[in-house]
Amino acid sequence: MTPVTVLGLGPMGRALAAAFAAAGHPTTVWNRTPGKAAGLDVAVAGTAAAAIAASPLVVVCVRDHAAARSVLDVGVPAGRTLVDFTGGSPAQARAMAAWAGERGVDHLDGVVVATPEAVGGPGAVLFYSGPGGVYEAHRSTLAALGGNATYLGEDPGRAAAFDASLQDLFWTAMSGVVHMFALAGAEGIGAVEVAGHAKAVLGFFPDLVDQVAGQVAAGSFPGADATIGSVAGVLDTILGTVRAHGLDNGVLTAVRAEVGRAVEAGYGAEGFGRLAAPRS
Amino acid sequence: MTPVTVLGLGPMGRALAAAFAAAGHPTTVWNRTPGKAAGLDVAVAGTAAAAIAASPLVVVCVRDHAAARSVLDVGVPAGRTLVDFTGGSPAQARAMAAWAGERGVDHLDGVVVATPEAVGGPGAVLFYSGPGGVYEAHRSTLAALGGNATYLGEDPGRAAAFDASLQDLFWTAMSGVVHMFALAGAEGIGAVEVAGHAKAVLGFFPDLVDQVAGQVAAGSFPGADATIGSVAGVLDTILGTVRAHGLDNGVLTAVRAEVGRAVEAGYGAEGFGRLAAPRS
Ligand SMILES: NC(=O)c1ccc[n+]([C@@H]2O[C@H](COP(=O)([O-])OP(=O)(O)OC[C@H]3O[C@@H](n4cnc5c(N)ncnc54)[C@H](OP(=O)(O)O)[C@@H]3O)[C@@H](O)[C@H]2O)c1
Ligand SMILES: NC(=O)c1ccc[n+]([C@@H]2O[C@H](COP(=O)([O-])OP(=O)(O)OC[C@H]3O[C@@H](n4cnc5c(N)ncnc54)[C@H](OP(=O)(O)O)[C@@H]3O)[C@@H](O)[C@H]2O)c1
Repeated sequence: MTPVTVLGLGPMGRALAAAFAAAGHPTTVWNRTPGKAAGLDVAVAGTAAAAIAASPLVVVCVRDHAAARSVLDVGVPAGRTLVDFTGGSPAQARAMAAWAGERGVDHLDGVVVATPEAVGGPGAVLFYSGPGGVYEAHRSTLAALGGNATYLGEDPGRAAAFDASLQDLFWTAMSGVVHMFALAGAEGIGAVEVAGHAKAVLGFFPDLVDQVAGQVAAGSFPGADATIGSVAGVLDTILGTVRAHGLDNGVLTAVRAEVGRAVEAGYGAEGFGRLAAPRS
Repeated sequence: MTPVTVLGLGPMGRALAAAFAAAGHPTTVWNRTPGKAAGLDVAVAGTAAAAIAASPLVVVCVRDHAAARSVLDVGVPAGRTLVDFTGGSPAQARAMAAWAGERGVDHLDGVVVATPEAVGGPGAVLFYSGPGGVYEAHRSTLAALGGNATYLGEDPGRAAAFDASLQDLFWTAMSGVVHMFALAGAEGIGAVEVAGHAKAVLGFFPDLVDQVAGQVAAGSFPGADATIGSVAGVLDTILGTVRAHGLDNGVLTAVRAEVGRAVEAGYGAEGFGRLAAPRS
């Protein structure tokens, strides 16, 4: 059982430490503010340096990459493996990989696509990127964190790039969910009443995702059922009602503006999937 | 078999006329531009007035409500029933109901939540609103249009209000789908590669819709896993990457601005569902 060190005991760091300990790995922890290890079956180090010295595999999970750098600047000995679960951009993950590389430290970037409560369970989704050999060497230890780990490739920014793309989808769609309820409410429609229909609408999305993916891969965006030009008209109608109620219209106005730019660029007769393709 | 008249033979009007005819209703059609009835098993009227005179049930489905009004201004005799499938806002549906009421014409607003190809089939979703007695009187005739009809209430604007809310969700979420593919592409991730993960993310949405619906109904928005304040940080990270690639950032910037206003209003520690509730 490989000893593991976890630096950072926010909700996510605690969950990672608890999962390693539960799987039987001798686990050492450190947190900037003391007293956060209560209830964990772990060894508590007095300094970050002592925690790093305790294990060949060092996991860091703090607020952001500036915080991670300030923790790790006490020094990580060459030959250690650093797995960074701190959330951030692909560029930040690549910068951390370069920092580690300069010090002879092996580096993986990790992304937890799950809540802290789900970590360690079969449903927890985790993404990794970095050198394939480093991932293979620690795969069985990292399996303590959840049953659904995906290695995404050598580019250290790749896990964060998947995460950014999926978070983009998630929060944009969530903004559609809350705005639907706001608009329905303004029209006197109860939230529970519209929810069933909303779930039916969302049930189309797996097929739509595959359809757009196929169009992007083929570079062809047929507008069979709904062209970008016809979506412009639909959005104008919705926006009229949204504005009449004095609801926030920022997101819909931005969607309408993007659609308008595509129409001006000559794509009005193509399908909405065209917006997924880079334009010059 | 009630005779039915269909005014307007665009793709949707044609599909409605074909479905009534296929169900055995004597069907009369009219379209502003002649020659659009080819291939339909219907009677073609030479004028809108003649078409309206032919049937007790008159369906109109043209580009927009201004067009519908210009067609119907030839006069609809009192006692006729008008079912308006022209797309538009709740306010436009209510205005059409008032117009009909002044003339002693029974009125239903209809919404086809389906493509023309699906009309007449078991999966075609249709919404109706207007007087319950009028709907009941024509329910069996309207059943020719599809197996999945929902009567939503007496307010003639209610079908359009459901439609607007669901279209709001649909197109906002679709803008998330295309932007996810654009961001993944900019990071060198293939569309088909990210699509599987995107479908997994979208698989959470039925539960999330129910969760937000319950929060709206209860007027309470606990921020257990993700507070509005933490979403602000996630969006800033995504936006940094989106801007670095020079991708369109309008929609994400608008989501971020809405989140920022909620934080400023003191909701930073509540859940994202709070954005569904009207604010003063
Ligand atoms: N929570 C989730 O659902 C979730 C999901 C996926 C990914 N993540 C990612 O996981 C990371 C940790 O998140 P979290 O939920 O545990 O809570 P968090 O509030 O993002 O981070 C709290 C941790 O960061 C430490 N920290 C903050 N600034 C520091 C600094 N300047 N120097 C040293 N340590 C510092 C805190 O130490 P103190 O106790 O001393 O303040 C604490 O250990 C974040 O990057 C987040 O994006 C979280
Ligand atoms: N297609 C869909 O998937 C779909 C789905 C749901 C709802 N809808 C709604 O159904 C309605 C009809 O849509 P559509 O797909 O059939 O095509 P459309 O292009 O929206 O409408 C074409 C029809 O409108 C007529 N029209 C336009 N301006 C007119 C005017 N000033 N006077 C008289 N007639 C006029 C056209 O007649 P001419 O042939 O003479 O131009 C034609 O019959 C729209 O309101 C749309 O929002 C469509």
